[in-house]
Amino acid sequence: MNMDKNKGDEKRVTLVLFSGEMDKALAAFTIANTAAAMGMQVTIFFTFWGLNVIKRPGRGRGGRGWMRRMLNWMNRGNARSLPLSKFNFAGLGPWMMKRLMREQRMLPLEEMIAQAHKLGVNMLACSTSIGLMGLSKDDFIPEVETIAGAATFLNEARQAEVNLFI
Amino acid sequence: MNMDKNKGDEKRVTLVLFSGEMDKALAAFTIANTAAAMGMQVTIFFTFWGLNVIKRPGRGRGGRGWMRRMLNWMNRGNARSLPLSKFNFAGLGPWMMKRLMREQRMLPLEEMIAQAHKLGVNMLACSTSIGLMGLSKDDFIPEVETIAGAATFLNEARQAEVNLFI
Amino acid sequence: MNMDKNKGDEKRVTLVLFSGEMDKALAAFTIANTAAAMGMQVTIFFTFWGLNVIKRPGRGRGGRGWMRRMLNWMNRGNARSLPLSKFNFAGLGPWMMKRLMREQRMLPLEEMIAQAHKLGVNMLACSTSIGLMGLSKDDFIPEVETIAGAATFLNEARQAEVNLFI
Repeated sequence: MNMDKNKGDEKRVTLVLFSGEMDKALAAFTIANTAAAMGMQVTIFFTFWGLNVIKRPGRGRGGRGWMRRMLNWMNRGNARSLPLSKFNFAGLGPWMMKRLMREQRMLPLEEMIAQAHKLGVNMLACSTSIGLMGLSKDDFIPEVETIAGAATFLNEARQAEVNLFI
Repeated sequence: MNMDKNKGDEKRVTLVLFSGEMDKALAAFTIANTAAAMGMQVTIFFTFWGLNVIKRPGRGRGGRGWMRRMLNWMNRGNARSLPLSKFNFAGLGPWMMKRLMREQRMLPLEEMIAQAHKLGVNMLACSTSIGLMGLSKDDFIPEVETIAGAATFLNEARQAEVNLFI
Repeated sequence: MNMDKNKGDEKRVTLVLFSGEMDKALAAFTIANTAAAMGMQVTIFFTFWGLNVIKRPGRGRGGRGWMRRMLNWMNRGNARSLPLSKFNFAGLGPWMMKRLMREQRMLPLEEMIAQAHKLGVNMLACSTSIGLMGLSKDDFIPEVETIAGAATFLNEARQAEVNLFI
């Protein structure tokens, strides 16, 4: 009997999304939304460059001090404007990828995020990265309800069957 | 007593191989083959750029539409011709790495893949990526028996003790 | 009752640190040190480029044969001199990141490593990578007590609740 894997059929997935690249974000949300649709409880912890995936368009470019402003200006972007980790070609790659996805009737990333929210995927933004970059809750899309630290992530992760760092 | 970790000694490992780089593929197959040799049940789910690791040499360069053909031509490659994630230098890095590996009596990647197959490692190719890139089963080496989606991966992963995204 | 998750409250985390970049190393040690402070048993397995994080400053640049010497010279670096995976700008990015971290009263990476050691985090260096690069135990900081292979890592990982590949 496989007791440990059947705690009332409740299974958990936690993903750390560290990368701010379109292809990795697509992988993360494909896994998250599939797991949620299968009835699993899913948490995504957005940290470092991964925060770009949940930035509100046009926001998050400021911050206290010239270094933060420079970093945040260079690091601007949101779900609609992420680079590819390969073959980015100044945005040509992502443009082509989006066309191929549409042709395959795949949802674009921003709609996968909305779908994740509807499916009950829990999205947490990393407080340490946010502090470092001088961002605030308002810089993120409303689907992200909680800003939390590594301890909150670990508390979820140690109860989860599937943990991935993306 | 540690019941949950000793279900008839059957332990499982699932790896997502997202990266198409030689160094990451070596890490994945070192873990996979060691785990399989230790008696663990291993699944590798190849997705996105990781599909290059299992492409049949000379195949997978076409596809429907000029965008797919361009993508697949740029993204050509197989286990024998993957770049390094660092110090690639247009192929000089991988060439040196292969020489160093031979000197250390390590198997080259293509032989590690054959060994994985012999050890019973289950290799799945991601159906979503394959659809996106316009590839087909024939574009992959025969060791890859199954094309499957995220649900199949998650079903394996939630029964596994070790899950890694590489 | 959730037996499998409460084996005497002992929970385990294993991290594979494959990347030699400052931002990924910071993520790894933030997770490791938080987990250790929460009473979890933590192991970090340093492999490939991740070995740079634990190199002793000024060491690890030699090796047998010109290829190893060239590789190790190009790949020189330690916790104080790692690049960023994004916006590195020949070292300007890491310099700015360190200033922002200091402003936020975050520990620099080398102090996070010392803290990890004090908290009992178990640091293993990958024997296969070390052999490949022609390094030896003396090339690493004393906090790293053990050189071990993939089997040792897997033996830890299959007993852990949280496994991440970074």
